[in-house]
Amino acid sequence: MTDLRGIFPPLPTSFKKDESISEDGIRANIRTLCNYPLAGFLILGSNGELVMLSEKEKQKVYNTAREAIPDNRLMIAGCGAESTKETIALAKQAASAGADACLVLNPSYYKGQMDTMALRAHFHSVADASPVPVLIYNMPANTGIDMSADQILEIADHPNITGLKDSGGNLVKMAAVINSAGEGFQVLAGSAGFLLPALSIGACGGILALANIAPSMCCEIFENFNSGKIADARETQLRIIGANTAVTRKWGVAALKAAMDHLGLFGGIVKKPLQELDDTKKASLLQILDKAGIRPVTQKQG
Amino acid sequence: MTDLRGIFPPLPTSFKKDESISEDGIRANIRTLCNYPLAGFLILGSNGELVMLSEKEKQKVYNTAREAIPDNRLMIAGCGAESTKETIALAKQAASAGADACLVLNPSYYKGQMDTMALRAHFHSVADASPVPVLIYNMPANTGIDMSADQILEIADHPNITGLKDSGGNLVKMAAVINSAGEGFQVLAGSAGFLLPALSIGACGGILALANIAPSMCCEIFENFNSGKIADARETQLRIIGANTAVTRKWGVAALKAAMDHLGLFGGIVKKPLQELDDTKKASLLQILDKAGIRPVTQKQG
Amino acid sequence: MTDLRGIFPPLPTSFKKDESISEDGIRANIRTLCNYPLAGFLILGSNGELVMLSEKEKQKVYNTAREAIPDNRLMIAGCGAESTKETIALAKQAASAGADACLVLNPSYYKGQMDTMALRAHFHSVADASPVPVLIYNMPANTGIDMSADQILEIADHPNITGLKDSGGNLVKMAAVINSAGEGFQVLAGSAGFLLPALSIGACGGILALANIAPSMCCEIFENFNSGKIADARETQLRIIGANTAVTRKWGVAALKAAMDHLGLFGGIVKKPLQELDDTKKASLLQILDKAGIRPVTQKQG
Amino acid sequence: MTDLRGIFPPLPTSFKKDESISEDGIRANIRTLCNYPLAGFLILGSNGELVMLSEKEKQKVYNTAREAIPDNRLMIAGCGAESTKETIALAKQAASAGADACLVLNPSYYKGQMDTMALRAHFHSVADASPVPVLIYNMPANTGIDMSADQILEIADHPNITGLKDSGGNLVKMAAVINSAGEGFQVLAGSAGFLLPALSIGACGGILALANIAPSMCCEIFENFNSGKIADARETQLRIIGANTAVTRKWGVAALKAAMDHLGLFGGIVKKPLQELDDTKKASLLQILDKAGIRPVTQKQG
Repeated sequence: MTDLRGIFPPLPTSFKKDESISEDGIRANIRTLCNYPLAGFLILGSNGELVMLSEKEKQKVYNTAREAIPDNRLMIAGCGAESTKETIALAKQAASAGADACLVLNPSYYKGQMDTMALRAHFHSVADASPVPVLIYNMPANTGIDMSADQILEIADHPNITGLKDSGGNLVKMAAVINSAGEGFQVLAGSAGFLLPALSIGACGGILALANIAPSMCCEIFENFNSGKIADARETQLRIIGANTAVTRKWGVAALKAAMDHLGLFGGIVKKPLQELDDTKKASLLQILDKAGIRPVTQKQG
Repeated sequence: MTDLRGIFPPLPTSFKKDESISEDGIRANIRTLCNYPLAGFLILGSNGELVMLSEKEKQKVYNTAREAIPDNRLMIAGCGAESTKETIALAKQAASAGADACLVLNPSYYKGQMDTMALRAHFHSVADASPVPVLIYNMPANTGIDMSADQILEIADHPNITGLKDSGGNLVKMAAVINSAGEGFQVLAGSAGFLLPALSIGACGGILALANIAPSMCCEIFENFNSGKIADARETQLRIIGANTAVTRKWGVAALKAAMDHLGLFGGIVKKPLQELDDTKKASLLQILDKAGIRPVTQKQG
Repeated sequence: MTDLRGIFPPLPTSFKKDESISEDGIRANIRTLCNYPLAGFLILGSNGELVMLSEKEKQKVYNTAREAIPDNRLMIAGCGAESTKETIALAKQAASAGADACLVLNPSYYKGQMDTMALRAHFHSVADASPVPVLIYNMPANTGIDMSADQILEIADHPNITGLKDSGGNLVKMAAVINSAGEGFQVLAGSAGFLLPALSIGACGGILALANIAPSMCCEIFENFNSGKIADARETQLRIIGANTAVTRKWGVAALKAAMDHLGLFGGIVKKPLQELDDTKKASLLQILDKAGIRPVTQKQG
Repeated sequence: MTDLRGIFPPLPTSFKKDESISEDGIRANIRTLCNYPLAGFLILGSNGELVMLSEKEKQKVYNTAREAIPDNRLMIAGCGAESTKETIALAKQAASAGADACLVLNPSYYKGQMDTMALRAHFHSVADASPVPVLIYNMPANTGIDMSADQILEIADHPNITGLKDSGGNLVKMAAVINSAGEGFQVLAGSAGFLLPALSIGACGGILALANIAPSMCCEIFENFNSGKIADARETQLRIIGANTAVTRKWGVAALKAAMDHLGLFGGIVKKPLQELDDTKKASLLQILDKAGIRPVTQKQG
């Protein structure tokens, strides 16, 4: 089984002005972020604007990213789609591009019909067909579905399902999953806002939007926790709360990209209907970053 | 402006066993349903499994349907997508296939960012580019976003936006929109469960899953209401409540298709992860249809 | 069974400056409102600030109101409480004060435990003990529990339960209840925002905050609907939507009382933590009332 | 300021068969639980069935409990009520009974009106009047209101408001509050399900239903965390998840009392409309307790 311990940034997809993929942007960001002790990257997660891309664009992003990611770092590929058939096709494309694992969001448009049986059938069909291990992705803020611990455990019961990314932040649920799932089941925090709490109950790491702009701080929390320096880990955890909220729940991908532009990475535009931050919000964002001690990623953070 | 008064079934998309499009199924269903005084059809709505189809499949369904729909009936085309760019592309394809209007679902994956400004910008970009009038589609049960009356009114303020399909069933909201929108703004009930209440406050008709299997009853409610026979309209309205719930909120498209198979139309399979009804549910469904007095669509209903 | 057809204002409880009950205010309001063809009054509903009053205060309000309400008008008494025991005690007090029926809100603090069995047991114990018929009160905006049609039908199955006040505004649910409940089961709309839609599917009337300040308009909708003048009923229904929202969901009891003060009734203060409307909101409220054509209740409305 | 570090059970209120207060039950439970290193007790919290009791009964419970609680343990008194006036009266009664602090639930019936201004005014009026420090109580599962970090911080800004009990389990919110509130502001976890995660980000302890039946395990998590034995704390934390869910969210107070009866404490009946556990649920509960290693409280746990 692929070892998923550590911190992964979910890389935003870089676009040119006309909303086409910027392969240069993707490569540049990966290169810069590889200066930090990150375990790897999530390509085409929610922050990668997956749901906005055509089938061809997705393939191009998988390929571009994998070529840029060194062999000693993992590539997890976001493969969620509404139909089982398309999800399987994406998992195969991602694997053939060289992904180490794929992250599968639950279908959510037909919310009323997505009961345990339908979800289990979907994930198991994907896991049967996927050449690489599958991670379950629970993302209630975007899907409107918050899978329960019992549902996740039902779904997890497949040899090619290796873990869970949970972005809901319900620590009781994460603990219940960790307690009941088999030995090797790996749970990753889906947001830096609850990284330390998740580590405290046995998460093996995190896939964190904030790791794109504050990679050293995210890695510090992880490493300090692992060396028993809880007070140090907590100090960093508390300090980043506001910045994390700003680039996730509050202002989303547009804020994350604006922050990247500000910090020496390639941020660029978001695809419409996402809107760019206006000047007031942008000024407020920069203050929040500064207050959290987030510095250009080419410099030493902290 | 296109006159949208009347009853429209949102046609389920017919699939072959391998989940590819069955053009024969689509044609046969349209032919049969044209025996009823329906105003037209919605092609590729939620019941059309729009979110499950590739770009090519959508185009094929638009074309097949338009060829089968006689000129004296309208074709409304579902064109919702997460990105503004793709939505515009779909609207253009639908129009060039011969759609009379397009129905645009609000993007919903980035829920936290879909504020009034983003939604208005999205709908206005689509309305600017669309060769045919645009209907706003509010479908909270599937999108997890319930646009408010104020938001809908902000969005509606565009010369190429002609109306609203509301599937949320909040009559206060529908009345507020009807009261404040300009003269010609046309509001359509999005479910037969609240057709008569919607007509009572000024809706011009409905796009009703139930109209696929009980077209005469849906048309009766509409016609009786218009001729002032409220008690007759109510009698039918109350009688269909249970059957409508069964093929919508409760068991969804799989139940609608099972009912179509039972009633002499082409139902066929649903695309996965949607699940076929098991035998117990199917038996229960047939009882519910029978109790509501729903008969094969080749026979006289009522 | 008590005949509940018609329009009932849920009378706000009048307070003196020190938050003690103003019996004079209660009497004056009832006297004025009896100039309109209202079927009766709800005393101590949500607008009556029931949850803010001590046991003694509730008894005083029941008694004061009943003495002021003429014999040819009904008094429905709000009797909701968290414990079954206290609810029964209130129903008995209300009955001995002369109430014609009591309105029982479902307990809601222990939301997770209020399943059908617990709710049915509660309502049936109250109905067994109550000397007067019981109305079920579904008020999801305040309780956070939205009882389903199936739950309401399970609860309704008792000879001393006579009907339902539904403030949720889900017309499909109301229609399902009307369709399946026994002949004499009486459903009342819980808000003027959906009065006409509710009448269209068989509601027998409404308990409407707006009937405190626009009694003639509310009665007009009811009477025009009953005489088949649907267009007239709709015209009034649409016109009052904004004013109704202002004194209910948007600004609540404080706005209702401010409107009453403005229109020649006794409004007075709300109990804390409810806050009085500030000047900006009050000015906005008066404009909304004026736009809806709501005039002092001593004058002819319309 | 009162030091609130440590573990507090929220004591269920003991009733006789006729639903009257059992002072003997209260005394016996306190006596037994004082064999464990608990910091004190919460009297009349949600598990104390506060909302079911009359004004006199509340006073009796405060007095009985305080007499039984030794001076070296704290008594926190639940004082929540819908009106500000009644809340203040309860806080004064609790203080005069000898409470060390009072826990104030936000009013929640008029949900739509409970904005930051109303909540702040309520809490500040109570804090002005209360002779003892005030704890804010956020309990979204019961109230239907989930106060945001910003709201809590606005409310917390008062010299007599000493902390927060948060039962929502949103660790990001708790971390945001801890990060921004003043030095001495004390945050307590409201459920054992997330005790360790809460401690990891700086909570000072917990008020935990589970501490009534597994006091030694709850204290172990607290003490092991404080001595840097994170792995040991985690082992216990994971082990109790299922048992904690059973006596809180899943089956509530009835399960907690059934467990108390089983483990050598006074459990007794719940007040109606709460329902006793049926035999199947009770058997399942006992298995869950056993699996978690929860033993009679008179024995050594673990």
